[in-house]
Amino acid sequence: MLTPDDVRRYLDRLTKPPGSLGRLEILAVRLAGIQQTLAPQTRPRRLVLFAADHGVVAEGVTAWPAAVTHQMVQNIAAGGAASSVLARSTGTDLRLIDVGTLGPDLGDVPGYACRKVRAGSRNLAREPALTVGEFDRAVSVGREQALLSATDGMRLVAAGEMGIGNSTSASCLTALLADVPAEMAVGRGAGADEDSMARKRAVVAAAVEAQRDRLPGEPLAAIAAVAGLEIAALTGFFMAAADLGLTVVLDGYIATAAALAAERLRPGTAASMIAAHRSAEPGHAAALARLELEPFLDTWNMRLGEGTGALLLLPLLDSAAAILNGMATFDSAGIGPLEALTKLATDEHG
Amino acid sequence: MLTPDDVRRYLDRLTKPPGSLGRLEILAVRLAGIQQTLAPQTRPRRLVLFAADHGVVAEGVTAWPAAVTHQMVQNIAAGGAASSVLARSTGTDLRLIDVGTLGPDLGDVPGYACRKVRAGSRNLAREPALTVGEFDRAVSVGREQALLSATDGMRLVAAGEMGIGNSTSASCLTALLADVPAEMAVGRGAGADEDSMARKRAVVAAAVEAQRDRLPGEPLAAIAAVAGLEIAALTGFFMAAADLGLTVVLDGYIATAAALAAERLRPGTAASMIAAHRSAEPGHAAALARLELEPFLDTWNMRLGEGTGALLLLPLLDSAAAILNGMATFDSAGIGPLEALTKLATDEHG
Repeated sequence: MLTPDDVRRYLDRLTKPPGSLGRLEILAVRLAGIQQTLAPQTRPRRLVLFAADHGVVAEGVTAWPAAVTHQMVQNIAAGGAASSVLARSTGTDLRLIDVGTLGPDLGDVPGYACRKVRAGSRNLAREPALTVGEFDRAVSVGREQALLSATDGMRLVAAGEMGIGNSTSASCLTALLADVPAEMAVGRGAGADEDSMARKRAVVAAAVEAQRDRLPGEPLAAIAAVAGLEIAALTGFFMAAADLGLTVVLDGYIATAAALAAERLRPGTAASMIAAHRSAEPGHAAALARLELEPFLDTWNMRLGEGTGALLLLPLLDSAAAILNGMATFDSAGIGPLEALTKLATDEHG
Repeated sequence: MLTPDDVRRYLDRLTKPPGSLGRLEILAVRLAGIQQTLAPQTRPRRLVLFAADHGVVAEGVTAWPAAVTHQMVQNIAAGGAASSVLARSTGTDLRLIDVGTLGPDLGDVPGYACRKVRAGSRNLAREPALTVGEFDRAVSVGREQALLSATDGMRLVAAGEMGIGNSTSASCLTALLADVPAEMAVGRGAGADEDSMARKRAVVAAAVEAQRDRLPGEPLAAIAAVAGLEIAALTGFFMAAADLGLTVVLDGYIATAAALAAERLRPGTAASMIAAHRSAEPGHAAALARLELEPFLDTWNMRLGEGTGALLLLPLLDSAAAILNGMATFDSAGIGPLEALTKLATDEHG
């Protein structure tokens, strides 16, 4: 068992003042801890994006019409989306899974697969968004992708989403699973205005109210009632990735809502995760705190989703891994002698 | 003339909610503005490290003995230092210039050059650290490296330093040039304890007091009196890089002190700069504010120097450039029609 203290002790033997790389060292401790090695690896790596539509869009809670979900699926598949571009620039394999959009199967596109459970979730403001059976089938789609990532030899994985309306679903899950008041769990998503926000707050408050008492006895049904198909797939992906020993880089608010569901259904899932950033969504900080995760890009105000926050952290993970794998120790570099320097640094001059 | 608003308008045409990439978009605006193109480049790139020793170490202001400067020069040359490792992992060419350590010339080492102006600066607590002539010669060494970077086709450059004692010099320059009280300009550097800190504060306060009145009439002499040879070289590097139209990624406290000197001696130098991070040194924020620079990794608490902060930001600059160069616009992706979506996003749902 490699403890965080073991990693810190090793970092202090490297040719730099102890702790002087700041949060890069904290990131290195986390990465080495998850992989249980002082020589962690960050490649090969893959981002799996799950896309689906949401019946709750009918309530006027979003800035964009539902049709944009599938248009963005096409854009991602064509390589023009933010996630496509950042995946390329960070050397990350990208998979795109339609788990339930309202659009057609794109057919034979590299990296794309159509695994539609149903054409969009139901309107969670009127009825349960998904049955337990539907939720489970979407979870299986996610599990399948985690397994594929493992068999393809991925060392690091991330998962993201595309789904107009899914921040409403994520707000419900955050309110339910992280005990955040509904109004605090609701943000602008991809750009809702004040009227949409008011509708969104009302929808979330009512849905959470309806499911809260059900959660202890029937957690799956309660979660399914406010979830979306891509969120269910993310939940399955995270649970399976943890089972498989993969290192998971966690994206923003929607992905974190799925992580809350995964942690609830498979306690310990979050222990395999590194939180990339704290999003502009107000409920994200509380959700991460519930998972005992510290976001690294905590002042970057991202709110795009699509795994872009996770992609942004990947090169910093490369840097953290490079420090552990590549730096000389004081003894190997012949700086010192180490004892004298350590003495100087700790006894005499601090 | 490409204005920040021009870049923002272009970013808003890309297939994502406006502003949803948060500070990555701010970074993109800055990068595009400096390079005056919507297709900015971040490669090829180079980090130039300048090393020198400091007479002020005799005052007991540091955690490490002066001998460590040259030991670290050897370590960097051998590829075992944090800067060596992060340069490799980010695809950054690394040059190492001895502008005045107490150690010997390493000879024929790839990427290394000995351009010693003198063997260490004088003790600034007792006498001027450098004469104006020495300062100028070290500035020329820096200029030469900027010119070489330009002729070698570098699109992005950064500069860093190695020099035990140089945070004392940087504190003096920050106090003098950014009007920061001496006690606020003094931090732990590479790990000074309370006694060393007290000595450091006294040394800085006295040196700043001695040079403050001289600054308006004889800025070069005042700066030289508290500078170090690597800081002078950084100053020359920054001034020349700005003249040559290079994009400069600014490292931490010591590099920023040199940037203050460069801005004083060549106003406008900072306009070519992107500040990588806000270091753990307490005076750094004020120094950056004086240069009107916003640090991007502002919560990372780095305090190593050696250009490591700049190296950490480079992949995020790659991501910012990739967004501008690679993303589809709403019209090119056929999402919309754009007017309808824009209307939806701005009039109806915000």
